[in-house]
Amino acid sequence: MAGTRKVIELFYDVACPYAWLGFEVLCRYRNVWNIDLQFRPAFLGGIMHGSGNKSPGLVPNKCLYMGKDLARLALYFGVPIVSPENPAEVKGSLSAMRFVTAVAESREGRQADVENVSRELWKRIWSGDEDITLPASLSEAGLKAGLPANEIEELLQLASSQKIKERLKSTTQKALDCGAFGFPHIICHVNGKEEMFFGSDRFELMAHCIGEQWLGPQPAKTSARM
Amino acid sequence: MAGTRKVIELFYDVACPYAWLGFEVLCRYRNVWNIDLQFRPAFLGGIMHGSGNKSPGLVPNKCLYMGKDLARLALYFGVPIVSPENPAEVKGSLSAMRFVTAVAESREGRQADVENVSRELWKRIWSGDEDITLPASLSEAGLKAGLPANEIEELLQLASSQKIKERLKSTTQKALDCGAFGFPHIICHVNGKEEMFFGSDRFELMAHCIGEQWLGPQPAKTSARM
Repeated sequence: MAGTRKVIELFYDVACPYAWLGFEVLCRYRNVWNIDLQFRPAFLGGIMHGSGNKSPGLVPNKCLYMGKDLARLALYFGVPIVSPENPAEVKGSLSAMRFVTAVAESREGRQADVENVSRELWKRIWSGDEDITLPASLSEAGLKAGLPANEIEELLQLASSQKIKERLKSTTQKALDCGAFGFPHIICHVNGKEEMFFGSDRFELMAHCIGEQWLGPQPAKTSARM
Repeated sequence: MAGTRKVIELFYDVACPYAWLGFEVLCRYRNVWNIDLQFRPAFLGGIMHGSGNKSPGLVPNKCLYMGKDLARLALYFGVPIVSPENPAEVKGSLSAMRFVTAVAESREGRQADVENVSRELWKRIWSGDEDITLPASLSEAGLKAGLPANEIEELLQLASSQKIKERLKSTTQKALDCGAFGFPHIICHVNGKEEMFFGSDRFELMAHCIGEQWLGPQPAKTSARM
């Protein structure tokens, strides 16, 4: 395909189910659009604190609607989101995102590992209502993602190192500096400019912005129908 | 067309530009989908207070993004939204929404008047950066909407009556009771059930929910292209 592939940076945290939708859509469109998708694991807690945003869970009507909205979107996007029994109890994602950051650091260049580990963590929390805070949980996600068993212990140690803590902090700060107030936070690099999108409901606009076409959240299914 | 038209209730306030997008899209789809669109002028201030939601304007990054997002959506939807010079200064919409409620009350059954007056008020505030609080402003909007000049004075008086205050309050309370936390708040009546949608970015899902097809925000343009 002619022309340089457009870089799209996806900032996310597995605590956020809307980010899971955006993540899966962009993964699917890597084979449809002329893009270079780059994962930017970051920390939602830091974004909320740094931007002064408040959790939607604090507004009861918004919280109720989100459950319904997510169930509808899960079907439409073909992503198996099941809200946890008690969303207010969703545990912190700091250790999980440090683990993902460690994977990104130690297996630099192997985006597939970052992708698979992130997906397994989302599956745990937003599909299976399972823990993502304990080392054993992260280890299990790593194994399911296909990481070599003998590397996982190392990755867990790396995840709690100062280097990784700083890297996660700096990615989160970069998102804040680029205007983030929640996830997914997506930056499209188009003709030397950064175009920022928030959420998983602006893909039609994003397609237009990068000169591509939106074929719905499940492009393979769409083209099969066409 | 076979089958009963599905009732769609649109709760809105002209203070909200996203509600303008939803309003125009649903007005366009009255000629495309088999729906009976019913306008429910309500008061955003009451929704925010009653639901405990906070204005997005309070989060600086969100506020910056909204300006960009609205400019993109305005183009994409073909609605002439231009953010006011100082959005934080947007005046209250209470008198404007009482005026719209008075139009709905006194010209019952003439949905076209409610539609036109609402659109003229949106144009003032979200296109022309003009006042919508003073009687002269409401009067001008009424004239542009094609209301008879000799009725406008009556409508302004009616707008400040207890009856209209109560009607606006009760519509706002109904929206809150149905889960609203912002506008547009849209209720689709499907097979005896109420399906609620928030925002102007769920029309694909809404179409699916009511058994219709989404053709983009400008269906006439879309079909012309097809």
